[in-house]
Amino acid sequence: MSSLLDEVLTANRAYQDAFGDKGSLALPPARRFAILTCMDARLDPAGFAGLAEGDAHVIRNAGGRASDDAIRSLVISHKLLGTGEWFVIHHTDCGMELFTDAVMGQLLAEDLHTARFVEGRWENQAKAGGSPEGRYVKWLTFTHLEDSVREDVQRIRNHPLVPRDIPVHGFVYDVRSGRLLPVS
Amino acid sequence: MSSLLDEVLTANRAYQDAFGDKGSLALPPARRFAILTCMDARLDPAGFAGLAEGDAHVIRNAGGRASDDAIRSLVISHKLLGTGEWFVIHHTDCGMELFTDAVMGQLLAEDLHTARFVEGRWENQAKAGGSPEGRYVKWLTFTHLEDSVREDVQRIRNHPLVPRDIPVHGFVYDVRSGRLLPVS
Repeated sequence: MSSLLDEVLTANRAYQDAFGDKGSLALPPARRFAILTCMDARLDPAGFAGLAEGDAHVIRNAGGRASDDAIRSLVISHKLLGTGEWFVIHHTDCGMELFTDAVMGQLLAEDLHTARFVEGRWENQAKAGGSPEGRYVKWLTFTHLEDSVREDVQRIRNHPLVPRDIPVHGFVYDVRSGRLLPVS
Repeated sequence: MSSLLDEVLTANRAYQDAFGDKGSLALPPARRFAILTCMDARLDPAGFAGLAEGDAHVIRNAGGRASDDAIRSLVISHKLLGTGEWFVIHHTDCGMELFTDAVMGQLLAEDLHTARFVEGRWENQAKAGGSPEGRYVKWLTFTHLEDSVREDVQRIRNHPLVPRDIPVHGFVYDVRSGRLLPVS
């Protein structure tokens, strides 16, 4: 067993021991809202937005972008599970501002393993052979943080499967202070 | 301001007050792993897997499925941010076992607002006019929980942009006990 797997399962046993009555929580979110945010390791939505288990749906991807898959999740969240208010939360110092589709396509074409960011540019540590498939992916990078929130809020609001009366709030999370800043 | 928005911002102020030295965390995940799991409100990955802020990427969507967007996020996680071990975690009592593409397409075609689950079937509360767009979406439902984990692990392992040497672990999270059960 990998040491990481062992660490995760040890932490999980401690969580089970303190599980209390959480086993009786219902499937639909009790506070009837959903958060779409980034996968970034520094973000703990339960912490920064005050969620207990059972409260709210949390959807996360690279960038917290309103991808087709995030919208699939939001539509299920409302249509089948009753959420009626949504938050789109991007954050400062996001990795999605550090590359472009062209850069990612080239990096992956050369090698699949982790690249380094040196003096403002990405470079592969090896060129052991990659895949051209990266050139066929829209990576959903962005260059302006607040605009990326505005565009994602707008895409969700205008989506044909989203009712017009669901409030969609845009925010930036500041990784230096833990603060949520509204984007209007 | 909605009362929900007020609650979230009040909780966020308390989080800021206890933020400590988290503002100095680096962008790449310190423990170099990523978790893909479901948006379900009862799941707190930081709790059940023992994550502190800064430790690991967390990707979440409806079902915890290995969608193209989840794979976009995983590839960014490894290629640019150095994660080298991934967990795919679905869970018991998942909403994705309660409908099919055909059901969802029909429900959305009739009405966009929340449907009810009554006596084992979904029914719209109103038929105010929906959209046929739902019929063009692959909703990524499943009928067998462990198989859904196996299939997603396999899809990730076989993806042309994923190096063959990244361990991908499959688990089911039991919402009644908080326990992570390995799927082999």
